[in-house]
Amino acid sequence: MHTSPVAILGGSGYAGIELTYLLAHHPRARIEVISSDRWVGDSLATHLGIEGKPGELVYASFEEAAERAKSCAVALLATPNEVSAQVAPKLLAAGCKVIDLSGAFRLTDDSSALAYYGKEVVGAKGDVRVGTYGLPEFFRDEVVDAKLIANPGCYPTAATLALAPLLEAGLIDRTDVIVNAVSGVTGAGRKSTEAYGFVAVDQDVRAYRVLAHQHTPEIAQVLSRRAGAEVQLTFTPHLVPIARGILSTAYGRLSVKASSADLTTALANAYAEEPFVSVVRSPNDVSLKQVVGTNRCVIGAASDASGRVVVVSAIDNLLKGAAGQAVQNLNLILGCDEVAGLTQLRRFHT
Amino acid sequence: MHTSPVAILGGSGYAGIELTYLLAHHPRARIEVISSDRWVGDSLATHLGIEGKPGELVYASFEEAAERAKSCAVALLATPNEVSAQVAPKLLAAGCKVIDLSGAFRLTDDSSALAYYGKEVVGAKGDVRVGTYGLPEFFRDEVVDAKLIANPGCYPTAATLALAPLLEAGLIDRTDVIVNAVSGVTGAGRKSTEAYGFVAVDQDVRAYRVLAHQHTPEIAQVLSRRAGAEVQLTFTPHLVPIARGILSTAYGRLSVKASSADLTTALANAYAEEPFVSVVRSPNDVSLKQVVGTNRCVIGAASDASGRVVVVSAIDNLLKGAAGQAVQNLNLILGCDEVAGLTQLRRFHT
Amino acid sequence: MHTSPVAILGGSGYAGIELTYLLAHHPRARIEVISSDRWVGDSLATHLGIEGKPGELVYASFEEAAERAKSCAVALLATPNEVSAQVAPKLLAAGCKVIDLSGAFRLTDDSSALAYYGKEVVGAKGDVRVGTYGLPEFFRDEVVDAKLIANPGCYPTAATLALAPLLEAGLIDRTDVIVNAVSGVTGAGRKSTEAYGFVAVDQDVRAYRVLAHQHTPEIAQVLSRRAGAEVQLTFTPHLVPIARGILSTAYGRLSVKASSADLTTALANAYAEEPFVSVVRSPNDVSLKQVVGTNRCVIGAASDASGRVVVVSAIDNLLKGAAGQAVQNLNLILGCDEVAGLTQLRRFHT
Amino acid sequence: MHTSPVAILGGSGYAGIELTYLLAHHPRARIEVISSDRWVGDSLATHLGIEGKPGELVYASFEEAAERAKSCAVALLATPNEVSAQVAPKLLAAGCKVIDLSGAFRLTDDSSALAYYGKEVVGAKGDVRVGTYGLPEFFRDEVVDAKLIANPGCYPTAATLALAPLLEAGLIDRTDVIVNAVSGVTGAGRKSTEAYGFVAVDQDVRAYRVLAHQHTPEIAQVLSRRAGAEVQLTFTPHLVPIARGILSTAYGRLSVKASSADLTTALANAYAEEPFVSVVRSPNDVSLKQVVGTNRCVIGAASDASGRVVVVSAIDNLLKGAAGQAVQNLNLILGCDEVAGLTQLRRFHT
Repeated sequence: MHTSPVAILGGSGYAGIELTYLLAHHPRARIEVISSDRWVGDSLATHLGIEGKPGELVYASFEEAAERAKSCAVALLATPNEVSAQVAPKLLAAGCKVIDLSGAFRLTDDSSALAYYGKEVVGAKGDVRVGTYGLPEFFRDEVVDAKLIANPGCYPTAATLALAPLLEAGLIDRTDVIVNAVSGVTGAGRKSTEAYGFVAVDQDVRAYRVLAHQHTPEIAQVLSRRAGAEVQLTFTPHLVPIARGILSTAYGRLSVKASSADLTTALANAYAEEPFVSVVRSPNDVSLKQVVGTNRCVIGAASDASGRVVVVSAIDNLLKGAAGQAVQNLNLILGCDEVAGLTQLRRFHT
Repeated sequence: MHTSPVAILGGSGYAGIELTYLLAHHPRARIEVISSDRWVGDSLATHLGIEGKPGELVYASFEEAAERAKSCAVALLATPNEVSAQVAPKLLAAGCKVIDLSGAFRLTDDSSALAYYGKEVVGAKGDVRVGTYGLPEFFRDEVVDAKLIANPGCYPTAATLALAPLLEAGLIDRTDVIVNAVSGVTGAGRKSTEAYGFVAVDQDVRAYRVLAHQHTPEIAQVLSRRAGAEVQLTFTPHLVPIARGILSTAYGRLSVKASSADLTTALANAYAEEPFVSVVRSPNDVSLKQVVGTNRCVIGAASDASGRVVVVSAIDNLLKGAAGQAVQNLNLILGCDEVAGLTQLRRFHT
Repeated sequence: MHTSPVAILGGSGYAGIELTYLLAHHPRARIEVISSDRWVGDSLATHLGIEGKPGELVYASFEEAAERAKSCAVALLATPNEVSAQVAPKLLAAGCKVIDLSGAFRLTDDSSALAYYGKEVVGAKGDVRVGTYGLPEFFRDEVVDAKLIANPGCYPTAATLALAPLLEAGLIDRTDVIVNAVSGVTGAGRKSTEAYGFVAVDQDVRAYRVLAHQHTPEIAQVLSRRAGAEVQLTFTPHLVPIARGILSTAYGRLSVKASSADLTTALANAYAEEPFVSVVRSPNDVSLKQVVGTNRCVIGAASDASGRVVVVSAIDNLLKGAAGQAVQNLNLILGCDEVAGLTQLRRFHT
Repeated sequence: MHTSPVAILGGSGYAGIELTYLLAHHPRARIEVISSDRWVGDSLATHLGIEGKPGELVYASFEEAAERAKSCAVALLATPNEVSAQVAPKLLAAGCKVIDLSGAFRLTDDSSALAYYGKEVVGAKGDVRVGTYGLPEFFRDEVVDAKLIANPGCYPTAATLALAPLLEAGLIDRTDVIVNAVSGVTGAGRKSTEAYGFVAVDQDVRAYRVLAHQHTPEIAQVLSRRAGAEVQLTFTPHLVPIARGILSTAYGRLSVKASSADLTTALANAYAEEPFVSVVRSPNDVSLKQVVGTNRCVIGAASDASGRVVVVSAIDNLLKGAAGQAVQNLNLILGCDEVAGLTQLRRFHT
């Protein structure tokens, strides 16, 4: 079968490694070139244990890979914000489509982008300001024809899949939304700091960037677009001692009378045709074990007599929250089956 | 120095073990009798490694210990709800004061007690319906003279210490309070079920008893009493793969204009004289590592321009959330220094 | 492509679940029937998240599955020793080949089998005493034609792959071999006991069944057969707080002068054609992360001037140590590519 | 009661922090000065949560602390090898006794010291070549009068306490000793490298410095001295995903006929009067949970018919393996109760 050549820039970060695993045996794409800042000259087999022909591919320097990516069908950028901001316009100019896993092209509001990502990132983007937001469950039609995909953040994926259908259906109040989420350590990327050392992280939990996390405007932007009006959001991320996974616990208020079953039905209907979203009967039935290792999102909702709504959702931050979603977007761009390369994944934790 | 004889019933559960460690070398109390359902006839030294004379004490059966407790100054009950409900009235009748770590005597509203603890527990309590709520930071004067202390739940301790001063000061709206908390596995007590097995818990996170946890009415009751009017509360507990510790992230709305510094000051003033509560500059500065192994609660608060308030607090669920608080109450009852036996504790996790 | 019908008995234990993941999308085998003692009537999709057609298969009771297995090409038994001992002879009598993952048919010496597995197991086996030992790297020719495969134990796989080539080559003394190994908690199977609870296992390490583990005679038997003379072995297993993986550290004494490079070369030559065994330059280069999630074994050896030899090897206890090896054996029995269904596995821990 | 002034140099490393906790409330010593390379000007209360008067002490720079230490009774050095090598001679010259927790003064053989610690360390020591080896169970009489204590390494403490009595009693062969040990991550000291990051360490196990660890000559030196003849040793350390604790599994061969009970008796007799060493009935009864948080060592031994001996021992690497042992030595030097400040410690992990 015909396979399209793709490039991976940033192949040795956590998301880049996941992309490599997913694309090494993809039925319709082949990794033509891959960069790494630490493994130049080594093979995929050496560092990732990838078998067969794909394992023989060798990591290139960023410069070489960025150049060779220009003749690929699609480049996947698992690079820091400022690197993505610089390289994406050049690839697009050369006719290569881009799926960017960084935050550089996600925010439509320039002042938000400046506030959360800084002048360096915003300045480096040139004329290309925003990508098509690559959450297929909401924006599939746009993704199909996109040249530049802004692949969603991990927290925004978990939170917006949980809340958007309820806002769209007018079931919950758009002026009072809270997302409280916990993430595994890979969410912070590969770090060599004591703060992410085993002794520091194990047995600890902490909130971080309270009322100031860069995913706040991203979640609000997506929810507002789906709700058709501005959504007011509070978002609090936490670090927990696990390697992978995000569990989001979202809070809202009913706008109309609705039971837990009504909420569950609304969500189930919204995702009835979605291959990667499952709606379960109760928030108590959602857990990381159900999703880590897969491209799935699991969601459960409930309400009580006081009008409070709680929606719990879970994803693998590196798959549905990053590399898996990027491959889902890639499939749409390549015009192949949206689930290609994503269905035989298995849960890591039985 | 004179030491008062105390009894521990339920000495081999997690809270009972913590009580034992705290009281084995307490300057003003001595363990006169201790029960265990699994270690009868063995010494404290054998199972807990307690050194010296106190290590020689031997576990008794519940029946024997309950009988002998009657002649002690105070009995500490680290027993299931229904056991506490039955034994506390008998001890009180014999003239022994009681500090009950279960939930049996916490709820003042009988219908809540019935709904969350069941007929068996409520029925067993006889004429004794409610204990003095043993949160010294709020109810110290009552504790000093109490005959029956209802030692607070772990989540309620973390949540109410974080929120009550802000409600009391009229800084936040009492009709819109959310507590989102995570707890280590010891919070569930000693269990022999697969659900708490290493393979099940490690690398997983889940919410449980969403909109239905028995600590919800307890938190609401304490906050309402402090606020002087009914507080409406949503509470969601989560299980995370750590052994000990609770991190509570509470959400409210400003009733008046107030900066993060205003909130921090209000909390700092409220706890200025408290030996076990520390207020830090930011919710980002709160972590389990600061409290696990100690009887301390650490709290940090912030607000934003939209009027959202976030208060993060942390405790060791087995110490300030159970046994440490019980000893603090015991000290008040015995009329000795409130911090006796609780100051040389050390953090477990550097 | 033609697929052969296979049965899985014991589908909800850890090894059974791994078998299910591996065979759900196997190119040459299809799961015809699968039993579970807890999930009867539920689908594979429900409990394991398996996608597509294979996910629709429903768990049967053991009795039903054992009956229906008789008409399958091969039955894979992930059942307790005594259950395997009883059911294997019946399946064989019905013409169904059997791959047994239990220890029931591994030991050739009846008195060892009695001592380590007990009268119940040995008595239940009927006329069928021993299976073909299913370690393809050593006994591939026998496996191809076998009717009953005794799939190796997890520790024996890790230990014998590390040591056998050195014994066969006469490089180390067969009278002085020690295997010190650590295993993750899944090695104990699904247990609902406090001893395997999170609080008990986390932060702890302990040796167990010192000088008395049932894998000792199995390791000795395999090594003796390969060495052509009796090997004297000491084996000590340890439990460590991880979910999966075995790291074996084996000690021997040089029989002849040989450098670390000589040992490495001997191992590399022995496994030059093996798809699932990798020999690395140093014992320091072996880690669980390289193998967990895959069917691979990684081995590194070194010696010093005193003649001491250290060989470190690592496997995933549930894959190369159980279900992966069983599928490798199945492939050989079915006459298809030995690596079918086993090459696109990925490491769980990057 | 009179307290002696002591200095801690290197107060913010793992061992330095443990020293601080132990000495902050010590009945006979008081911390007069403490250095830190990261916390200068901050108080012990701020970083360690130490209560009361001792919490008010402020960290000084190394230079200031080293100068002020000269007028202390004893300085405890929790500094890198090369720093200890330089500063110890100066302190001794000023009349301050020194307990050095580094490896700088442990090896009596200069060529070993050069090979394992390097020219820089050996060269910096000046005329002071070796300290008194501070393992009180073996060398108490020397410690009492020592000016410079070389506080033992963590692995050597666990291994030599397990083996020395058996070698001394002639029960095991001194030419064939293996120590296989696992250690928690704090054993590596405070590191900011990816190799000790949570994602790298969690779920992994690996051996390191196989046949080349610097504790090998130290263990051999101590065992040889106790055995009265050269002991030949192989030592393999492993890293496991826990914060603290060492479990050592040592292997020997019987020199004479001896049962497991004989070995246990020999060990029990050797340590009958020792406050910090416990001998249990079986190697299966030794676990990290029994010792982590305390200054204790737990040992269990067994033999089999083939003459193989296995001795399992456990310590907290930061307490009996470092700071706890240093305080035990300090107590001996100060002439106070050897267990002062070490008996009310509690296990961290119930």
